[in-house]
Amino acid sequence: MTLEAGMVAPGGTVGILGAGQLGRMLALAAAEFGLRIHIFAPESGPAFDVATATTIAAYEDEAALEAFARAVDVVTYEFENVPGHTADVLARHAAVRPGPRALAVTQDRLHEKDFVTGLGIPAAPYVTVDDLPGLRQALAAVGLPAVLKTRRFGYDGKGQVLLRDDTDTEAAWRAVGAVPCILEGFVPFEREVSVVAARSVDGAFAAYDLCANTHRDHILHRTLVPAGVSPRLEQQAIEMARWIAEALDYVGVLAVEMFLGADSGPELVVNEIAPRVHNSGHWTIEGARTSQFAQHIRAVCGWPLGLPERLGRIEMENLIGSDIDGWRQILQEPGACLHLYGKRQARPGRKMGHVTRVFPEGGTAS
Amino acid sequence: MTLEAGMVAPGGTVGILGAGQLGRMLALAAAEFGLRIHIFAPESGPAFDVATATTIAAYEDEAALEAFARAVDVVTYEFENVPGHTADVLARHAAVRPGPRALAVTQDRLHEKDFVTGLGIPAAPYVTVDDLPGLRQALAAVGLPAVLKTRRFGYDGKGQVLLRDDTDTEAAWRAVGAVPCILEGFVPFEREVSVVAARSVDGAFAAYDLCANTHRDHILHRTLVPAGVSPRLEQQAIEMARWIAEALDYVGVLAVEMFLGADSGPELVVNEIAPRVHNSGHWTIEGARTSQFAQHIRAVCGWPLGLPERLGRIEMENLIGSDIDGWRQILQEPGACLHLYGKRQARPGRKMGHVTRVFPEGGTAS
Repeated sequence: MTLEAGMVAPGGTVGILGAGQLGRMLALAAAEFGLRIHIFAPESGPAFDVATATTIAAYEDEAALEAFARAVDVVTYEFENVPGHTADVLARHAAVRPGPRALAVTQDRLHEKDFVTGLGIPAAPYVTVDDLPGLRQALAAVGLPAVLKTRRFGYDGKGQVLLRDDTDTEAAWRAVGAVPCILEGFVPFEREVSVVAARSVDGAFAAYDLCANTHRDHILHRTLVPAGVSPRLEQQAIEMARWIAEALDYVGVLAVEMFLGADSGPELVVNEIAPRVHNSGHWTIEGARTSQFAQHIRAVCGWPLGLPERLGRIEMENLIGSDIDGWRQILQEPGACLHLYGKRQARPGRKMGHVTRVFPEGGTAS
Repeated sequence: MTLEAGMVAPGGTVGILGAGQLGRMLALAAAEFGLRIHIFAPESGPAFDVATATTIAAYEDEAALEAFARAVDVVTYEFENVPGHTADVLARHAAVRPGPRALAVTQDRLHEKDFVTGLGIPAAPYVTVDDLPGLRQALAAVGLPAVLKTRRFGYDGKGQVLLRDDTDTEAAWRAVGAVPCILEGFVPFEREVSVVAARSVDGAFAAYDLCANTHRDHILHRTLVPAGVSPRLEQQAIEMARWIAEALDYVGVLAVEMFLGADSGPELVVNEIAPRVHNSGHWTIEGARTSQFAQHIRAVCGWPLGLPERLGRIEMENLIGSDIDGWRQILQEPGACLHLYGKRQARPGRKMGHVTRVFPEGGTAS
């Protein structure tokens, strides 16, 4: 049997950088297709429990990276902060999907903003900040309130400070670690939504229905689908995600977080691009014909995409820290689908699992 | 947090005897609940690729069994031919679910027949056969056609010979290995169906909708749900499965294969009990609110059962041997859910995977 170049056959091995819950759920989806999974991470984590093979090494360990890349048929990752040099070393020996351009653009907020606005897609106003005097100048340009964000390594609200009238500018600069930042104008938003979508090697695109997300302490708390926005706006959001995926020549699942404007100004503002499976897409495991994890595996293996069709009205809730203590109540709830990630310690703010409820379309809320 | 005796907490370890595709799919279901999986088998197999820990040892290796049982919170199995002594050794150190009685009854066709008929449930007529003269006597009693079946270690048509008018009796006796057997009267049947159901530690019972099964070369080829029998007969079949589960004080998923009578005689005849997840229940991964694998894990962990609710009209097809070569066509088919087991070699008759199609209830057939 001849395969197209870059197509992985069943029995092949998918290499995943990162051993967290996203890597774990990717590994479980890959296993359903008869694929083997090799996890590469600096330390053990939830994905190790279900992996066929594991490598513990630093992302800078070129010998380990080369051995890993040679042992797998394709490399993908569960997080956007893969060092660029790591991706380059891997790409010499194996296909890396999504490709290096997606990483380069999304792991630096400045590059991401430039990229998004360069496509003509609305984003919050922003200014580069390299030092304290630069921050003062930026504040004069952007106004208050504003959000100071590190250019790199931010997630779940980490590396961010909200500046108000009474905020000490110097303290804020120290709080983010005095590293290269951007200052963003604060966007008053009515709702936060995300598009989770996939693009295949041959350019096919498939988006899930728009997700409405609420946060607690900067961590995703709940996702509802449908999002309750107009079909026109939903279509517009999905089209923006498609432009982004095409401009990145993207392969795999990506998520685009957006704000729905509350006041005048643009109706939709892109907040962030995640070049990976995304927490707001966890509902697709039971709630869609093809889960985001299976979809990502299909895409990075060079396979056709599956149907993103939604199977009901969705409510997904994260289990953060001690929320996991409610596991027995959730198991007793008819139809509630409990997912736990096998993490040993339930530290505050730690994502321990999630629960998905799928209701008949048009049925009553829980 | 205090747990009821015999309840496994998330983060606990489920031990599974057997490393085939059933063990693999059980392991994947357990992983979604944050459980760890320890596989015990005499040799490596598909389940090893997704296990947290593995033991390769003989089922007679008492030291290895004891170490395994001590390392896990509950022991279950993917096949009924676990030696009784193995179960006894394990039960000294860990809960074994389903329990030893289910194993003792189902791994010997004579005991199983005696058990089923003892409950007043119809089964094909049968006579014990211990030697060639005994076979001749049994044939005189049961008549032709008849099926000679080894009492132990039969599956997928192995250990069975159909005897017709022209069959050489001595050749048939040699063909089954000249081991203890039963001779069964041939039941002319119109349809073969199965009940896949679960019973929890506290005695709750939940059955999936009746499955209609067709075979090729004695191996399950296709399962359709609904089975297309009358609600009365379906209810009767499920009640029989419930009696069987209760009489065995069963914990876990079981399958009861039945024939729907074609002529006069009983409408439903129990053919076989499988004390485990079952091929005819594979459709539940996408086709039911709770898969049979998740349901089995819930039951053996002492958790409440999930909803067995069916989510559409189902067609499940096994991929046997070279059927797996069709993987690319299946991936291109909208809505088809492909499952492969990661087996290295596609030998004839080997179960390599399956594909499930879920159609809207009342929709058109494929």
